[in-house]
Amino acid sequence: MKRPQIVILGAGYGGLRAVRILQRHIFVHEADIYLINKHEYHHETIWLHEASAGTLGHEQARYLIPDLIDKLKVHFIPGTVEKIDVENKKVHLQDRKISFDYAIIALGGEVETFGIEGLKEFALSITNIDTARQIKEHIEYQFATYRAEGKADDTRLTIVVGGAGFTGIEFLGELTERIPKLCQEYDIPQEKIKVICIEAMPSILPGFDRDLVAYARSFLEQRGVEFLLGTAIKKCTENGVIVSKGDIQREIKAKTVLWAAGVRGNSVIGKSGLPNHRNRIAVDSHLRVPNYPFLYAIGDSSLVIEPETERPFPATAQMAIQQGEYVANDILARIRGKTDTRPFVYQHKGTVCSLGKEDGIGVVFGKKIRGYKAAFMKKVIDNRALFLKGGLTLLLKRGKFRPY
Amino acid sequence: MKRPQIVILGAGYGGLRAVRILQRHIFVHEADIYLINKHEYHHETIWLHEASAGTLGHEQARYLIPDLIDKLKVHFIPGTVEKIDVENKKVHLQDRKISFDYAIIALGGEVETFGIEGLKEFALSITNIDTARQIKEHIEYQFATYRAEGKADDTRLTIVVGGAGFTGIEFLGELTERIPKLCQEYDIPQEKIKVICIEAMPSILPGFDRDLVAYARSFLEQRGVEFLLGTAIKKCTENGVIVSKGDIQREIKAKTVLWAAGVRGNSVIGKSGLPNHRNRIAVDSHLRVPNYPFLYAIGDSSLVIEPETERPFPATAQMAIQQGEYVANDILARIRGKTDTRPFVYQHKGTVCSLGKEDGIGVVFGKKIRGYKAAFMKKVIDNRALFLKGGLTLLLKRGKFRPY
Repeated sequence: MKRPQIVILGAGYGGLRAVRILQRHIFVHEADIYLINKHEYHHETIWLHEASAGTLGHEQARYLIPDLIDKLKVHFIPGTVEKIDVENKKVHLQDRKISFDYAIIALGGEVETFGIEGLKEFALSITNIDTARQIKEHIEYQFATYRAEGKADDTRLTIVVGGAGFTGIEFLGELTERIPKLCQEYDIPQEKIKVICIEAMPSILPGFDRDLVAYARSFLEQRGVEFLLGTAIKKCTENGVIVSKGDIQREIKAKTVLWAAGVRGNSVIGKSGLPNHRNRIAVDSHLRVPNYPFLYAIGDSSLVIEPETERPFPATAQMAIQQGEYVANDILARIRGKTDTRPFVYQHKGTVCSLGKEDGIGVVFGKKIRGYKAAFMKKVIDNRALFLKGGLTLLLKRGKFRPY
Repeated sequence: MKRPQIVILGAGYGGLRAVRILQRHIFVHEADIYLINKHEYHHETIWLHEASAGTLGHEQARYLIPDLIDKLKVHFIPGTVEKIDVENKKVHLQDRKISFDYAIIALGGEVETFGIEGLKEFALSITNIDTARQIKEHIEYQFATYRAEGKADDTRLTIVVGGAGFTGIEFLGELTERIPKLCQEYDIPQEKIKVICIEAMPSILPGFDRDLVAYARSFLEQRGVEFLLGTAIKKCTENGVIVSKGDIQREIKAKTVLWAAGVRGNSVIGKSGLPNHRNRIAVDSHLRVPNYPFLYAIGDSSLVIEPETERPFPATAQMAIQQGEYVANDILARIRGKTDTRPFVYQHKGTVCSLGKEDGIGVVFGKKIRGYKAAFMKKVIDNRALFLKGGLTLLLKRGKFRPY
């Protein structure tokens, strides 16, 4: 009898977690496991706002995948998935095809620009290691050029952040922590710096507890962030953005525009002809693609509906990790002949939004926290994520044990 | 009797050295000394190629002037000199005028573009702290963007250096030392990087010993530098440079163009109506401006003719330091009533051109050196310059005692 082939597409939070569970529980000759990822490394998506602001080196936020897997059980293939051929159960890479009996789609997200003109060309986004370090270098280059060119072009010192969701707010926390240091380094008076956050919704962190939201907003405002709420970005150009609030349009000139307002699924999902909403698959109760019981989708590739509210859960790292664990166990059970596995149930443990390295807000196990405690919990969460991926070795190597 | 007023314009190698000698030998009420400088800090001009390449932090290459002067004897005035009114013996700053009995013009150099079109707009230059850190950030930003934009625009990885004189060659030494690290950091295959040095003269380091020049050239070529000699830059654009060799013109596409081929004096000299050659003053045997016995010019502000060859000495830090010492002593002697002071004699101790941190070429006290020994001597020279400016305190704080 041929051994079943399990293919995991993507080594993000979900994919890597699935691999870790599979390699722990599977016997060496029980199945062939293939992990496919675009880069040789896994990156900490939830640390990218720090790498982008320059408060954490980007090398700190990535690890080589071969160091995280059991090479006796898992074959790692660096490569870009171009298509999933569900009829023939084959994954197409650039230069080869891989057959599978079970596949886990864990391809992560792409930037969602909602069709806003110029965003793709002129805005930067916190998407991956490549773009995060570009943002850091872009901001430093603007600061360095401001004085060197001697023109006092203030638009070089204006940073626009589009979106006041989780990513936008956490980035602002780090950025405002770094700005005083940058100003000192580049001899720029701090009052020259403008940081403007533009959000189409009437509040920052939509859906979050109102008291905590107020705390976060006032915290960032005290650090000099200007919020334009209920304001939409209409267009992005080389010189900045055109925004509108009600009927009034105006231009905000800025050499740095960061778009942190939307994530959609990977375009491979659409191209492969799978049913999708903005390249996310509305999975069944076992996180499988409807009508394809051998095909799972997790993380940003999936859309999980919350039974109570009938709205999709936000695609967080926490969700992806739990999904990864679930699908690994589900596949393992089916390989071993079990058919009546239990459906996926998401356990919401909490959410913490950092505000720089020493402050934050959050709800953990139903309890509201803020300030020092939230910053502490954020590090606990970050460290736990490390442990789940790479065990004690990775935790000790990369854990966040900075004094606070 | 009124105390004589001595004004030093510029706190570079020459100006600062003059201040150090004056403050050591003058009595507290013997004269009023004013030091005027554009920035609050002095920078190590001869380390700027390192800061530009990113092999030395720019903060390492500057020191606060107030830490280097004796505040009982010297008044430091941060400000930009706009004009020297020699008839009324007044220096005009932006917001005030300062009278003087003796003045030392030590204003440093500006970039000489020889009228080449587009250089001012599109090329970077190793001139001061502002531009050095801009170069570093510019190169990093190009590397960071190369991957992030995903277009494989190779012109982002092409660096053109205009000029194979001292600055150009020392910069290439540092740059080629840094490139392997940058490639690793930004996931770029090293063979993608192109470094092209363009020099109008038929050789690099014109005037230097031929064996040593051959050594330096082959050293840098082994590190991947391509030399286009006897080749002139005709024009610089947003996309690179147009060069010509004989009748043949061609375009070299590069997002980074560095101009390291010329220095002229400060434009204030021309604006003040002083006799000059490219804003340098051909001084008399006492380093004074002809016809103005109370006005001295040193460093890049001066032109000193070598008696044997009848050609000007190159304006080096070594020259500026000796000039600073000389004029301080000359003024001191005149204040004290001496009129028959001895003329300035330049003592050439040697020249070392570094090739990165561990190699170099040079002639020291008439002896040719290269490799490890030259790198060692370079550090000795750097440390000596520190000691002359800031004594043991500065030497211990900023000295180059890296292992080699």
